[in-house]
Amino acid sequence: MLESEEAIKVMVNGLPGKVATVVAEHINESKNLDLFPYALTGIDISEKTCDINGDGIELITADRRDEIKRRKKPEISVDFTHPSAVDSNIEFYCQNRLPFVMGTTGGKRDTPGEDNLDTIEQRVRDSEIVAVIAPNMAKPIVLLQEMIRYASKTFPDAFKGYSLGTVESHQKGKADTSGTAKAMVDYFNKLGIPFKKDEIVMIREPYKQLIMGIPKDALTGHGWHTYTLKSENGSVLLRFTHNVNGRDVYADGTIDAITYLNKKINAGEKGKVYSMMDVLKGK
Amino acid sequence: MLESEEAIKVMVNGLPGKVATVVAEHINESKNLDLFPYALTGIDISEKTCDINGDGIELITADRRDEIKRRKKPEISVDFTHPSAVDSNIEFYCQNRLPFVMGTTGGKRDTPGEDNLDTIEQRVRDSEIVAVIAPNMAKPIVLLQEMIRYASKTFPDAFKGYSLGTVESHQKGKADTSGTAKAMVDYFNKLGIPFKKDEIVMIREPYKQLIMGIPKDALTGHGWHTYTLKSENGSVLLRFTHNVNGRDVYADGTIDAITYLNKKINAGEKGKVYSMMDVLKGK
Repeated sequence: MLESEEAIKVMVNGLPGKVATVVAEHINESKNLDLFPYALTGIDISEKTCDINGDGIELITADRRDEIKRRKKPEISVDFTHPSAVDSNIEFYCQNRLPFVMGTTGGKRDTPGEDNLDTIEQRVRDSEIVAVIAPNMAKPIVLLQEMIRYASKTFPDAFKGYSLGTVESHQKGKADTSGTAKAMVDYFNKLGIPFKKDEIVMIREPYKQLIMGIPKDALTGHGWHTYTLKSENGSVLLRFTHNVNGRDVYADGTIDAITYLNKKINAGEKGKVYSMMDVLKGK
Repeated sequence: MLESEEAIKVMVNGLPGKVATVVAEHINESKNLDLFPYALTGIDISEKTCDINGDGIELITADRRDEIKRRKKPEISVDFTHPSAVDSNIEFYCQNRLPFVMGTTGGKRDTPGEDNLDTIEQRVRDSEIVAVIAPNMAKPIVLLQEMIRYASKTFPDAFKGYSLGTVESHQKGKADTSGTAKAMVDYFNKLGIPFKKDEIVMIREPYKQLIMGIPKDALTGHGWHTYTLKSENGSVLLRFTHNVNGRDVYADGTIDAITYLNKKINAGEKGKVYSMMDVLKGK
């Protein structure tokens, strides 16, 4: 869209990565957001530009990123770069007072109840900027995880005697077990169900995925998870399913995070880190 | 089982009703509980005794219930009588200092945030007894409802733009829509999904239930519920399922409630009402 006075100017770093591209496309199509014409990328990226809905976004490799200081600053940066780039990017955002939304994993993160020195969150708190840092931008997944976390904290061992089955399907390229599934298993353990993470059934074969009902065009990008709890005598079954096709859900969450962060900037907040939970609460 | 010094003596009122019978059977089989040899029943019941695993339990109609005062008192009463009998039974328990677990609906109940005068809970609080009062004794259902309630309170409108589908299947005899399904719809409404209670799909036809996979012997007693949320563009599906066959789940919850209440009695608590949530928390 055309740049307008009110629209929030957003730089999407991590192009031409898959998630970054979908996020950039959604931002480009949004009425309230302006996609910045240049973006940070990894030093191993040879492309000079990335096409987003016909607009060419100039790609600036990490080693040349000081060039950005001489240009017009974005209001908010979005970061979907490689986990290994997280630490140095956060340093860059903090030093240059660029509020950001971080949607990747990587870097040392805050652990509840511990001294969180030297974490990426602490570096933002020490700075004058605000940021949303979330390992998962998919709102429905974050919400479901939070519901199960709440249950596991409030009603420990409530499902004692139950058994668990966990199946997750992701695109062929994903080698590791889903981090969301592992986190969910932790919560189910706290609810009294013994289950090891290596018992999680991983589906990576496209022919199995088609049989499961995953649409053909989502074979290259999806996350389907099912958690099934059964009582000892088999008379009770509880099942939680979250099926995501494509990457739109990450873009939706990112746009909500940008809008939320912009409110915080306008309210004059400084040195604060928000989570996707804060974005969901909207407060 | 044989009466032992340690076992909790429990009277199950509401026999020969279906849920009361299953509860009495489980109590009879439990090591830690003793089933009392007599029980209160409705004035319209003509049977004089009810057979529980070969033991004959004497049935005492409500109009003759003062006879119980002259007998040995149970430590805890369980009430699965008719909703219309709730008020007068609670009066009886309070007057005769009989701690009880109430598993039926009916009677005026506490409403959060209101002056709760004249409710069944208030009558217990005014007495010297303790009680567990819960419209649903099924722990997994109570827990799932509480998770969704928590989400709806913490993240209002988090599923704005989503659509909902709700299907519930119960035995042929159940005329009304499930109260659990209606309560869940209230929570989904608060999460931002417009959906009317009359849009809940009720399945009552045994042939459809067999196709759904409900076991033949559960056709006369089951509750299968599925809530499906879909994002506007269809790329995200969330699904919550709770399938219960038979009535064992109510007996399990009731036994937990009895054990919990017994702890409170031993701790010297007086004039207190607990919910199934308290039982689940175990505190």
